[in-house]
Amino acid sequence: MNDDLPLADGAQARPYLSLRAPQPHYLRIRDQLVTDLARDLLPADSQLPAERELAERFACTRVTLRQALQLLESDGLIYRQNRRGWYVSPPRIRYDPTRISGFMEYVTAQGRTPRTECLQAQRGPAGAWLAKRMGLDHPEQQVFHLQRRRWVDQRPVLLEYNVLVAEWCPELLGQDLSTSLTQLLRERFGHVQSRSALLMHPETLDEKQAAQLQASPGSNGFYLERLSFGEQGQPVEFDREFWRPDALAVVLETQGAPL
Amino acid sequence: MNDDLPLADGAQARPYLSLRAPQPHYLRIRDQLVTDLARDLLPADSQLPAERELAERFACTRVTLRQALQLLESDGLIYRQNRRGWYVSPPRIRYDPTRISGFMEYVTAQGRTPRTECLQAQRGPAGAWLAKRMGLDHPEQQVFHLQRRRWVDQRPVLLEYNVLVAEWCPELLGQDLSTSLTQLLRERFGHVQSRSALLMHPETLDEKQAAQLQASPGSNGFYLERLSFGEQGQPVEFDREFWRPDALAVVLETQGAPL
Repeated sequence: MNDDLPLADGAQARPYLSLRAPQPHYLRIRDQLVTDLARDLLPADSQLPAERELAERFACTRVTLRQALQLLESDGLIYRQNRRGWYVSPPRIRYDPTRISGFMEYVTAQGRTPRTECLQAQRGPAGAWLAKRMGLDHPEQQVFHLQRRRWVDQRPVLLEYNVLVAEWCPELLGQDLSTSLTQLLRERFGHVQSRSALLMHPETLDEKQAAQLQASPGSNGFYLERLSFGEQGQPVEFDREFWRPDALAVVLETQGAPL
Repeated sequence: MNDDLPLADGAQARPYLSLRAPQPHYLRIRDQLVTDLARDLLPADSQLPAERELAERFACTRVTLRQALQLLESDGLIYRQNRRGWYVSPPRIRYDPTRISGFMEYVTAQGRTPRTECLQAQRGPAGAWLAKRMGLDHPEQQVFHLQRRRWVDQRPVLLEYNVLVAEWCPELLGQDLSTSLTQLLRERFGHVQSRSALLMHPETLDEKQAAQLQASPGSNGFYLERLSFGEQGQPVEFDREFWRPDALAVVLETQGAPL
C-alpha cells in the first residue's frame, strides 16, 4: 500500500535517527503500529481497536497511547472520524502540477471517487489585497468569489477558494459549480488558461477550515495557490487550496539535476 | 516584504471566512499583529515586544496572547529563538524544482546566506526499506548515508538525509561534504543526474528533528523527497529533506491549464 510514505518500521524508515538513545515508549508504540499498517494488517479506512484495548495491548497509559496516535495522525497514517474512533488513512492522492489534469480527473484515475460541493458563490469587487495579488487593474474590478469543498470517497480533503475575473466568464454563477471548473470554462466559455504560477507550503488550518475538513483544530494543512492567465496572458483566475495534511502528495518529474 | 504570504489584514486575506460571526479575541490579536507585520512596522528578524507587554497592549490574558502567537508561528510569520523571545520570520526561501539550481545557489540568488553542515557520513548496506524505495538490486548494496543540516542566514531550516550508491561515487567520504553535493558529484566525479522524481507533503517533525531545527516540538514540517537517476537511468541518489514549516515555498510555472 501507500508507497509514498515511510511505512516500514520506524528504524528502517529513519535509519539515522534511531541509532542512539533508546526510544521513549510512545515512539515504540508508534513504530509498532506503523509496522502493522505496512503489513496490511490494518487496511485503509478500517477502524483501529478502541483506545482502551490498544492501551492494554501495549501495556501503557491512555496518555502515552494518545501521544503515539497523535503522531500517527500528524504523519497522515490514521485519522479520527467524528469522534467515533481512529481509522487507517487511505493513500495520499497524488497530484502532478505539471500535467494537464484536474481534481475530478486525477482522483478518478487513482481509483477513488471525487466529489465537489459548492459552499458559496457571489460576485463583487476584488478588493485591494486580491487586486494586488492577482495584478488586476484596480480593486473595484468585478470578480466571482467561489468557495468549494472537495471530497475523495467519504472524506472532505480540500477547501478551495476560486476568484475569477467576471468579464472573462460572465454568467458563471448560473452554471453548475459542483463540477470541474476548468472543464466548465472550456466547454461553456471556450476558454483555456495559457499559463499558471503555483506556490505551495504548509499552513495551519484555521478553526473553521479544520472543522470543514474534519481535521483536529490547529491541524496543519497543505496550502496550494495557483494564479492562472488567459489567452492573452492576462490574469483570469486565482485559486487557493487548503488540503488536509494527510490527503495530498505533490509529485513531479524533472529532467537534469540541481547543480 | 514576503509577498507569498497573505500578509494583508485577515479580513482581506481570507475574505470568505470573516463575513459571519465575530472573531474570538485571539484571532483579532493575530490579525492586528499580521497587519503590523504587513506595514513593516516589524521588519524581518526583529524581536517582538515581550509577551507581558503585548498582553497589556491587547488587554488580554497571557493564555489568549499565546494562542495568537502560536497561530502566527504555525503560519510561519514569527519564530521563537532559544526561548529568548519571538522574532519576525524572514520571507520563505522560494524553491523551483523544475529549475536546475541547488540549495547553495538559489538561496544566494535570493540575497540570503546559505550554509551546509555535515552531521553524519557513513558507508553501509542500504537495507530492505531503502532498497525497495530506491529500486536497488538487493538490500546489501553499499550506499553512503549522509545527514546534513542546512542554514539560511542564522537559522537552521532543513535537515537532509542523502543516500548515494557507493559504486557510483567511491571515495565520497573523503570529500568536503559541507558544500553543494551535486556540484561535488559533477566536479569530482564527472557525474550529472539525468532525471529526478520528486514527492512533497506536510509531515510532522519528530522531537529530535524539531530540536535540530529550533522548531517547537510537534511542529509540522515540509517533507521533500527526491529520487535521482544517473547517466544510464539507474537509481543513484535518494534524498529526504525535512524543512521548517515557515522556511520554504515551492514555486513553479506550468503551461496549459488543468482540464
